Amino acid sequence: MKVPTTQVRVLYVDTDQMGVVNNVHYLRYFELGRAEWIRQRGKSYKRIEEEGYRLPVVEAHLRYRESARYDDILSLEVEVEDVRAATVQFKYAIRRAADGALLCEGYTKHACLGADNKLRRFPDDLLVMLRPDT
Amino acid sequence: MKVPTTQVRVLYVDTDQMGVVNNVHYLRYFELGRAEWIRQRGKSYKRIEEEGYRLPVVEAHLRYRESARYDDILSLEVEVEDVRAATVQFKYAIRRAADGALLCEGYTKHACLGADNKLRRFPDDLLVMLRPDT
Amino acid sequence: MKVPTTQVRVLYVDTDQMGVVNNVHYLRYFELGRAEWIRQRGKSYKRIEEEGYRLPVVEAHLRYRESARYDDILSLEVEVEDVRAATVQFKYAIRRAADGALLCEGYTKHACLGADNKLRRFPDDLLVMLRPDT
Amino acid sequence: MKVPTTQVRVLYVDTDQMGVVNNVHYLRYFELGRAEWIRQRGKSYKRIEEEGYRLPVVEAHLRYRESARYDDILSLEVEVEDVRAATVQFKYAIRRAADGALLCEGYTKHACLGADNKLRRFPDDLLVMLRPDT
Repeated sequence: MKVPTTQVRVLYVDTDQMGVVNNVHYLRYFELGRAEWIRQRGKSYKRIEEEGYRLPVVEAHLRYRESARYDDILSLEVEVEDVRAATVQFKYAIRRAADGALLCEGYTKHACLGADNKLRRFPDDLLVMLRPDT
Repeated sequence: MKVPTTQVRVLYVDTDQMGVVNNVHYLRYFELGRAEWIRQRGKSYKRIEEEGYRLPVVEAHLRYRESARYDDILSLEVEVEDVRAATVQFKYAIRRAADGALLCEGYTKHACLGADNKLRRFPDDLLVMLRPDT
Repeated sequence: MKVPTTQVRVLYVDTDQMGVVNNVHYLRYFELGRAEWIRQRGKSYKRIEEEGYRLPVVEAHLRYRESARYDDILSLEVEVEDVRAATVQFKYAIRRAADGALLCEGYTKHACLGADNKLRRFPDDLLVMLRPDT
Repeated sequence: MKVPTTQVRVLYVDTDQMGVVNNVHYLRYFELGRAEWIRQRGKSYKRIEEEGYRLPVVEAHLRYRESARYDDILSLEVEVEDVRAATVQFKYAIRRAADGALLCEGYTKHACLGADNKLRRFPDDLLVMLRPDT
């Protein structure tokens, strides 16, 4: 098991009447993990936007393994799986911090857009930053 | 009981592990009701924004009476309580459509801002539109 | 283009600062479409739960094509792609009602669980109901 | 300014097309602050539920002062304003951590219910725990 990128505690509002975290909210956890991964590489997504780039999600995939429950601490593991000239794919594993059980895994694929909303090659510093861990 | 401004059905994602709609989501229903009230007066909030005005919520109050449950149809009753030169207060009652039971009531107060984010008097057409029912 | 299963209007709260519907909320639209598809087959998901079955999402995939914007009416097209003894896969297409443009497509896969949280074969009436359109 | 009960960073999904945190989400921050306040007094809300009590929100009030923006760190200040035999009122101030600016303040009032959903006096340990700071 990897060192988690960040952790988050499950709120009541994110549970549903099955008594578990509703499937919708995992994409929210993905965003949180991704933002912290980027920050830990020395830049914030906010800064990326200020520099004129945006990385909207163009594809997402989630596999729900076990349920997260109210008040659980979730460990978010994030890495870059693949980076191309103008797209990047992040990979996620969400674990229950208490025992490391895998709750959800998946990926999101992002396009790099300029301020004009057109596809753009990543600028060099982003390309270096997004290079997959080896 | 009034004719509802609009209706909405409770989704699973809006329930929590108490088996009822979580308190957070009622502000979402307020937005839905308010948007439809405005539309029924002949203008959309989208159009108001396009004309350079914005009506952010500056205050909100909610009183939760009974629980809404999954798959319930909710009737949203909306009216304007008070309109001033640059503020307007909407009032809401959310009822279970099946039996008319009052589930939640409250209000939101909005400021009228211009594109520069400064307080603005309502333009005449908005002022007429927002005049409380008598 | 198919007859949509249902339609929904984009709320302000579902937009983000890119000025479009945030990627997270499409799983919410999937739930809405799925619930209405089931209802139109003569049963509600609520009723399925009351009869002791639950169909949690075990996998989800989303491909974001174009942006949905505030106040857009979205057409939700839903169908069953595949049904097995104890799993079912729904397929979705979300279109802008105004021009039919495809905004998002994807699928969700569901397991059939009993009240004991164990995998169960679909009861006969559900199996018939979920049979893919031909 | 008080020591904040906890802090949280604004996610992209919580902004709206005005470029600020949407009004709905502050009730979510209230829940987060309240949960951490309770935990810091030596008990979790999860534990309270396990002991057979529930504290649903019966009233909420929010006053929005300034806007929170993407990636802002928010400081959540929470205290108990008033506790009676079977109700408790929490008070909140949400500040931008960077400069202490007050963004939102408000309160939530909660009823104490037993497992049977009936109003219950707080058990002694909860009553002591909820006693307002003096």
